[in-house]
Amino acid sequence: CVFFCRGIIQKSREEVASLQQCRPALTPVLAIVQVTDEVLKLNEDPKVHGLVLHLPTALLSGRVLNSISPEKDVQGVTDVNLGKLVRGDLEDSFAPPIARVVMELLEQHGLLAEGKTALILGNSGALEVALQCLIQRRGMLVLTSGWKVASLQKQVIIAPQEVMCTTIQLHCPFLHCGQHWGILGNRSSSSWPPCTPFHPPTPPPQNVVRSACRWLRQQRYRPWRLRSLTLQPLSPVPSDIEISRSQSPKAIELLAREVGLLPDEIEAHGKTKAKVRLSLLDRLKEQPDGKYVLVAGITPTPLGEGKSTVTVGLAQALTAHLKLNSFACLRQPSQGPTFGVKGGAAGGGYAQVIPMEEFNLHLTGDIHAITAANNLVAAAIDARVLHEATQSDKALYGRLVPTVNGLRKFSPIQTARLRKLGIDKTEPGALTPEEIRSFVRLDIDPSGITWQRVVDTNDRFLRKITIGQASTEKGQARQAQFDIAVASEVMAILALTDGLRDMKERFSRMVVGSSRTGRPVTAQDLGVSGALAILMKDAIKPTLMQTLEGTPVFVHAGPFANIAHGNSSVLADKLALKLVGEEGFVVTEAGFGADIGMEKFFNIKCRTSGLRPNVVVLVATVRALKMHGGGPKNLQLVADGCSNLRKQIEIAQLFGVPVVVAVNVFRTDTEAEIDLVCRIARDSGASDAVACYHWSRGGRGCVELARAVRKAAQQPNHFRFLYDLQMPIVEKIRTIAQKVYGADDVEVSQEAQAKIDNYNEQGFGNLPICMAKTHLSLSHLPDWKGVPTGFLLPIRDVRASIGAGFIYPLVGTMSTMPGLPTRPCFYDMDLDPDTEQIAGLF
Amino acid sequence: CVFFCRGIIQKSREEVASLQQCRPALTPVLAIVQVTDEVLKLNEDPKVHGLVLHLPTALLSGRVLNSISPEKDVQGVTDVNLGKLVRGDLEDSFAPPIARVVMELLEQHGLLAEGKTALILGNSGALEVALQCLIQRRGMLVLTSGWKVASLQKQVIIAPQEVMCTTIQLHCPFLHCGQHWGILGNRSSSSWPPCTPFHPPTPPPQNVVRSACRWLRQQRYRPWRLRSLTLQPLSPVPSDIEISRSQSPKAIELLAREVGLLPDEIEAHGKTKAKVRLSLLDRLKEQPDGKYVLVAGITPTPLGEGKSTVTVGLAQALTAHLKLNSFACLRQPSQGPTFGVKGGAAGGGYAQVIPMEEFNLHLTGDIHAITAANNLVAAAIDARVLHEATQSDKALYGRLVPTVNGLRKFSPIQTARLRKLGIDKTEPGALTPEEIRSFVRLDIDPSGITWQRVVDTNDRFLRKITIGQASTEKGQARQAQFDIAVASEVMAILALTDGLRDMKERFSRMVVGSSRTGRPVTAQDLGVSGALAILMKDAIKPTLMQTLEGTPVFVHAGPFANIAHGNSSVLADKLALKLVGEEGFVVTEAGFGADIGMEKFFNIKCRTSGLRPNVVVLVATVRALKMHGGGPKNLQLVADGCSNLRKQIEIAQLFGVPVVVAVNVFRTDTEAEIDLVCRIARDSGASDAVACYHWSRGGRGCVELARAVRKAAQQPNHFRFLYDLQMPIVEKIRTIAQKVYGADDVEVSQEAQAKIDNYNEQGFGNLPICMAKTHLSLSHLPDWKGVPTGFLLPIRDVRASIGAGFIYPLVGTMSTMPGLPTRPCFYDMDLDPDTEQIAGLF
Repeated sequence: CVFFCRGIIQKSREEVASLQQCRPALTPVLAIVQVTDEVLKLNEDPKVHGLVLHLPTALLSGRVLNSISPEKDVQGVTDVNLGKLVRGDLEDSFAPPIARVVMELLEQHGLLAEGKTALILGNSGALEVALQCLIQRRGMLVLTSGWKVASLQKQVIIAPQEVMCTTIQLHCPFLHCGQHWGILGNRSSSSWPPCTPFHPPTPPPQNVVRSACRWLRQQRYRPWRLRSLTLQPLSPVPSDIEISRSQSPKAIELLAREVGLLPDEIEAHGKTKAKVRLSLLDRLKEQPDGKYVLVAGITPTPLGEGKSTVTVGLAQALTAHLKLNSFACLRQPSQGPTFGVKGGAAGGGYAQVIPMEEFNLHLTGDIHAITAANNLVAAAIDARVLHEATQSDKALYGRLVPTVNGLRKFSPIQTARLRKLGIDKTEPGALTPEEIRSFVRLDIDPSGITWQRVVDTNDRFLRKITIGQASTEKGQARQAQFDIAVASEVMAILALTDGLRDMKERFSRMVVGSSRTGRPVTAQDLGVSGALAILMKDAIKPTLMQTLEGTPVFVHAGPFANIAHGNSSVLADKLALKLVGEEGFVVTEAGFGADIGMEKFFNIKCRTSGLRPNVVVLVATVRALKMHGGGPKNLQLVADGCSNLRKQIEIAQLFGVPVVVAVNVFRTDTEAEIDLVCRIARDSGASDAVACYHWSRGGRGCVELARAVRKAAQQPNHFRFLYDLQMPIVEKIRTIAQKVYGADDVEVSQEAQAKIDNYNEQGFGNLPICMAKTHLSLSHLPDWKGVPTGFLLPIRDVRASIGAGFIYPLVGTMSTMPGLPTRPCFYDMDLDPDTEQIAGLF
Repeated sequence: CVFFCRGIIQKSREEVASLQQCRPALTPVLAIVQVTDEVLKLNEDPKVHGLVLHLPTALLSGRVLNSISPEKDVQGVTDVNLGKLVRGDLEDSFAPPIARVVMELLEQHGLLAEGKTALILGNSGALEVALQCLIQRRGMLVLTSGWKVASLQKQVIIAPQEVMCTTIQLHCPFLHCGQHWGILGNRSSSSWPPCTPFHPPTPPPQNVVRSACRWLRQQRYRPWRLRSLTLQPLSPVPSDIEISRSQSPKAIELLAREVGLLPDEIEAHGKTKAKVRLSLLDRLKEQPDGKYVLVAGITPTPLGEGKSTVTVGLAQALTAHLKLNSFACLRQPSQGPTFGVKGGAAGGGYAQVIPMEEFNLHLTGDIHAITAANNLVAAAIDARVLHEATQSDKALYGRLVPTVNGLRKFSPIQTARLRKLGIDKTEPGALTPEEIRSFVRLDIDPSGITWQRVVDTNDRFLRKITIGQASTEKGQARQAQFDIAVASEVMAILALTDGLRDMKERFSRMVVGSSRTGRPVTAQDLGVSGALAILMKDAIKPTLMQTLEGTPVFVHAGPFANIAHGNSSVLADKLALKLVGEEGFVVTEAGFGADIGMEKFFNIKCRTSGLRPNVVVLVATVRALKMHGGGPKNLQLVADGCSNLRKQIEIAQLFGVPVVVAVNVFRTDTEAEIDLVCRIARDSGASDAVACYHWSRGGRGCVELARAVRKAAQQPNHFRFLYDLQMPIVEKIRTIAQKVYGADDVEVSQEAQAKIDNYNEQGFGNLPICMAKTHLSLSHLPDWKGVPTGFLLPIRDVRASIGAGFIYPLVGTMSTMPGLPTRPCFYDMDLDPDTEQIAGLF
């Protein structure tokens, strides 16, 4: 008997060994719990594969036993496991280990044979039923009974050769193996054959190994078993909010499970949004990435080309129709324009993220966190200027490094500043007056403050303001401005960072202005960088939502597309690329036309992330191409306008990435027009060009595009950056202007040149370039449509986002604060207090 | 046989009838589902008590069957139900209805008897196992087998008198009842007795009734089965953040379930916070309220008296130690001071809300939503002034009521404005030029704008600013200011509203300034009230969190305590009063001293909500009483300082509510001091006075207070308001000044009197009064400690929050924007990028 157990343990050891061959770091872990508090935590710990409760029997109520997650219930004590076993789902359930041991023993004694009858005695429930199921599945008859049943002895006597008796109670089992039958139980009766002791293996190694194997399987790539939501598109297409409302989204926990997220890896925000923890990147670090698809557009017109709808429609087509894993990665829209003039950013028609009102309003509060972080820096700057202006070195030092409970010491953030100043001391008392002076005085030049306050409201009256006019600010009034929140450098950092550590470092490096001696003053100098990381600790997690067809979407970050790089976050893309797995697709969108959004995607975002794109989808509409051709009317104008499309295809090819053109079809487009655009696109070097009907039909209307993208992703890929970071700043600007915009050259103003010299001096010369140019033309003149040539690109000024890590040359004036029109969207908005339904939101 | 079924159905009918006697509105509802999409929604619908899947058998996979919530699985098809049945939990599980019918039939035929043997044939799983469990529990032997087992016939022949054969398959059952045994199955064999058809009742009424009964039981008051978290207090007491971090909070879904919330009534925000839907109020509308306990304080000193810690500690004591249902209701703190100088507002020591960083930072974004709503109004005001200044009536009208797709119509918000102007027309073309003029021109007087922008940052440089200085604003620059976000009227409304409809109406009524002709201009006139409701639709739901001992807390709203009423939300209190049930307690906190916070709690909050308080807990500390006595040193000073305590007790008694004094004990307090304070308190009319040690010991240190509160709550209660709303404004102010503050009289400035006259004229004379007075003294002079007498209270100015519904007289200057000190808290703050742990947050 002991021999049998050894054999079973040996078998488990061999399974572990073979498991570890393919995954060296994995050791099946069994947690044995003696305090019920621990169970919930261990349920969610991906490092634990099995859970066993060692508690007094009196405490093992159904409620306690069922607190164990069925996936880790290696003792098979939960209702769910028992139910699965009864239903015959042996693959997905755990039988109680004693039942398994008994089965092995019976097997080895040749007692399991069709036509035999087994008698199971006992009332404790789960174990008997499990044994019964297992024995019955071998084609045997099973007789079950409580111990005290009167006819029991009689039954046993009737047919002792045919009946095999096994009686079990969990904690004190005995075993007897006779010729034809065995008794396993804690009651010995003088009229029964003698019993021998039997010690079942505890903890049960087999089930823990099985659980670990199952966990390992979950880590590997597999096509999702994702239930897509069915669409029944109406014609004419209703408003976006009506379409969104008519679809019931899946519970976000369900979607998360479907795409392979563990319960501990998500933080639900209501029923339809969840933040995804970055620990996922570590868990899946050995998983190969999926294919990386960028959606860009031709030079936009005020009509909108539909990049967002293509992004969403393509993901719907890939996952709901071609059954390929895919994620759409979108930017979070600013809430300001939602109440001004702009349409929603959740896509539109039958290619949307739902619920669209959640997408377009607060979402999970990331932009609010950015506003709080940004404005804390601003408040700290002006308060510091005031305090330095009104206090002596000694008073400042006394307050900045106070004596608390008799102790005086520098905080870690202050120590960092000391190191930066070249002061190596750690004792506050040891600083010389000069060192104290340089430590306490940032000496910020009020006219050199580049950091602006932000609000997420279209508030034009804050474009130029005077602050600090109250008497409490003692004459320190100065001119300032508010930008829209998404223009904050904090947003640009959120979009480019790869984790908490990196984000904190970038916050520390942010330059908020310069001292009177011309030195850059950073957020770290202000002592505020730790607080910024705290304010942004949740915003760094991408938000999971779903499309109208129930496929997954990440919404994360939305930096301004002119003074910043206008792309969604690196982190969302990275998480998505792991989740879709190597056969899957991540579809991400760049702001503005390909000349701006795509160029920055490649040269800034991909350079920062290290990710390599596989395909560019270039979105065009017939009506926009007509605008580029000079007017809205005929086929020739379409052909002329295609020059812009051709140019944008060429730009993508500069980077060595295959291009698929997606013609976003409108009701008014003719077949001849669409065919013409597709033909010109293919002639211009596009891998393929297809018409898309996602707006009116959902993913089904975008299947052709999905097939073309899948094909293009298999093409060889020769991705390269457009410029080397080591090139001088002006050279980098010139390269973009000439190769991307088609300018003859750049014309750098004196002011810009002075700034460039200054940045070089400060050691910022090797940063990438983020052009702040109008998106309405390839040139700097918004009205110049088509493909402008023969122009000099004027560089009016140059600024820098040192924390985000780029230099941004200003080509013309960029508005960073939109306004409200005479009749803002909000006139149509209402909330029904009974149904809680929103009206008038697009 | 048909007769038996009728009998069963009849029995169910009788059960329904008796159910409806105690709850007339209840009808057990069974949902029969043919599309799997519906299941998840119906699982969460509290109006549905049972769910049956009518799908082709091929679709009834384990995954589909198990998508039914076990609580509604009246057919007993889920693994969880089966597991419970096997375990013997008959009370809490549903057996498949056919099994129940078979049992009833066998019973009526006298076939269920100890010692008999039953043979169950078939492989479909759940049903056989259920029957086996039910039969076996009657002391019988059960023989189970698949159909094809060879020895089956032999078995049956061996003992036909003793074996009862029942074989079942779900969809086509036959029944035969012989003398000693029955066969129920779909296989008739010529060698077996003849079978007669049998139709089981579908849908199964019994289980639906049982499910409805169970649901009804959940609605009734019951002591919670709440697992509290154990505390092991350390000495010396660690920092707040360390204590918070050392405790693992329960999953918020678990806490929600423990306090009787249904899954559909909460919206989780991460693992430790959840918003609670207001639909709860409707579900529990027939439930009697619990006891309502207000925590107020003596006149505060800069040291802090610990109202929040008492509130939390009392709730911990009530629920974790006295096992009484209780909720603590707290205000959400402004994030601004978190980074300035203030301590946390989550309580402290071993009486805290956890995780305290979640509490003190963004929480669930309510204040961010308020900021967005408030600033949208501000942007709308200035943009409107600009647009009216630069456009003709015709141009304005054309833009405000544009022709869209050939149609021109007023939006509902515009129609509301027309009605307000006395214009009854619905056709835009029908308005006269005068009507158009009065419709399009709000004619806002820029100097009469009272609405201010807000940020949730301590930004002193925004106290007085000039806005609109950009050339795009065409010379419309004006002076303005930013307040801290919690000073917004939107916050005051959130705290006082009782639902979405009321909140929307209050938003519409908000007065933002006056026209050049002196008429009030409202948010509805600006067309923005619908958008405000949309922005605030989630903020209206209170946030559920937990104390350090795992008892429930609502965090909701936190209006400024000087220019507003400084109390947490009416809605949180109302929800909590229903959830605790009639034997339970809701402990809510008022800001500042009892002269301000408590007075406003009674006269404004209780008046608005209709709720009646049962007990006031008045918090005092020995060290604060010493300050009121004139210094920090001896027993006489304590005795002198108790004059303030005595006065505050008297104030509470003015309102007819019993008072319990809680002496919040500090390490340095002597026993003699504590005894003295308690004695004086009792002598002054307090029902009881007890020392509290919650800060150092948690709920256990507050058990005496909890007992005293429970006792006081049973006392007769004669609650009354201090003044009648119909009294003239000045009379109401005088009543408060004399009876509460102890002033001889009030001294109303000319400016204030003019405003009062104006409010009377505009019809706002019947609003309650919200005094804006310093909290540091009973008088208007912050330094005047103890109980000032013989003074005139100066009323410098009077303002109004019409949407929130109160008039606020200004006694002195109130700062509405805190600043940052030389060394703000943020210098100590940091985030560990690996552990994600926060350092330096209190």
